[in-house]
Amino acid sequence: MIVIGDEVLSGRTRDANMHHLAKALDRHGIALVEARFVRDDPRAIAEAVNALRARHDHVFTSGGIGPTHDDVTADAVAAAFGVPIGVREDARKLLAAHYARRGMEFNEARRRMARIPDGAALIPNPVSVAPGFSLGNVHVMAGVPSVFRAMLDEVLNRIAGGPPTTSRALRVTRPEGEVAGPVARLPARHPEVAIGSYPFDGPGGTGTTLVARGTDPAAVERALAELRETFPDGELL
Amino acid sequence: MIVIGDEVLSGRTRDANMHHLAKALDRHGIALVEARFVRDDPRAIAEAVNALRARHDHVFTSGGIGPTHDDVTADAVAAAFGVPIGVREDARKLLAAHYARRGMEFNEARRRMARIPDGAALIPNPVSVAPGFSLGNVHVMAGVPSVFRAMLDEVLNRIAGGPPTTSRALRVTRPEGEVAGPVARLPARHPEVAIGSYPFDGPGGTGTTLVARGTDPAAVERALAELRETFPDGELL
Repeated sequence: MIVIGDEVLSGRTRDANMHHLAKALDRHGIALVEARFVRDDPRAIAEAVNALRARHDHVFTSGGIGPTHDDVTADAVAAAFGVPIGVREDARKLLAAHYARRGMEFNEARRRMARIPDGAALIPNPVSVAPGFSLGNVHVMAGVPSVFRAMLDEVLNRIAGGPPTTSRALRVTRPEGEVAGPVARLPARHPEVAIGSYPFDGPGGTGTTLVARGTDPAAVERALAELRETFPDGELL
Repeated sequence: MIVIGDEVLSGRTRDANMHHLAKALDRHGIALVEARFVRDDPRAIAEAVNALRARHDHVFTSGGIGPTHDDVTADAVAAAFGVPIGVREDARKLLAAHYARRGMEFNEARRRMARIPDGAALIPNPVSVAPGFSLGNVHVMAGVPSVFRAMLDEVLNRIAGGPPTTSRALRVTRPEGEVAGPVARLPARHPEVAIGSYPFDGPGGTGTTLVARGTDPAAVERALAELRETFPDGELL
């Protein structure tokens, strides 16, 4: 994923889209492998797009496709692919009809939102009409969380998922430094299961949550069973 | 910044450290330019460390320095720099004394937290003792938010900040597509000020918040004055 926007890196806004994407992809059986946050800088955006599209099946971007001067994502993605970009008639019509219905002026700034790189497929925007687009394996979406979520639903409808991930968790009331030794034996014995260890320390007590995750439910259950044997007083979450 | 951890990318945990760092650096007069989220994978961590330390003054990492098998950050950072790593006596003593005081076993897993790359400076951890470290311009800190924050305060005490950023905001009750045209003229007239435009749409109304940011307060005020002339009904935030 690529999150685009000065407002996130300056701390003015707290990004919510990465966490939403991570959960949505997990449900869809796709692993989110890396994420980059970059500024509204065409070169930084293009560099991140080219780095990630070369090594991952899909790249999702968030932000920078509105009407203002700091919305440079569409042009940066076109530059990354080396394709021309211009106002596209189907996108222009969608926007013109939307503003006409609402009695609002379809001015030059708003026409910017119909600029789509050549060869891209539009991503519908049921919230505020201005579309996103998919170019190759790069899916360009809005930064406004409600619009991002709606566009992501459209994209996930189009792309194939994998088997969904099964996740089982055991809450153990022993500190991480004490469970670490016994737990370290498990990954080699359950190579198809990811074993995570997450300390907690709060009003409810101190301890470690152990998580077994994988796409083979039986393998996850086997790893969980061994965790329960190792920590018989653990609580299933 | 580099945020390390499968739990963030899988959506299990929502990262809070990047937003905290962004705001803390902003107050310290340092711009956060990019952030990367990577898995608990030594190669991915080392690659991100080497990419970012070459092009930025400072790199801050969060996560992966605990006692368990998935805590691989210290080894990955040592590999990125090509330096040896081993249990360091001062770190080991800190941890041994801490566990002795609490009557807890100082076992092999916990000794892992004393593994520090050669040539690094320790970052004190007033919350849970196990230290972070700075190696060159890379500051390696814990992922637990309370520990990350305490370590960051220590690091920011050591590194020089720049002039703090001044930020002024004007709330305009006109949609972004209408303010975009007039606002687009400002960046060229105020090159030392960053002008941001952020739509809002909620129970309080629909409109655009315009933000002028920069390290020269007088320049920011001049940009703000022009924004107020352009949008006389705007509300100062």
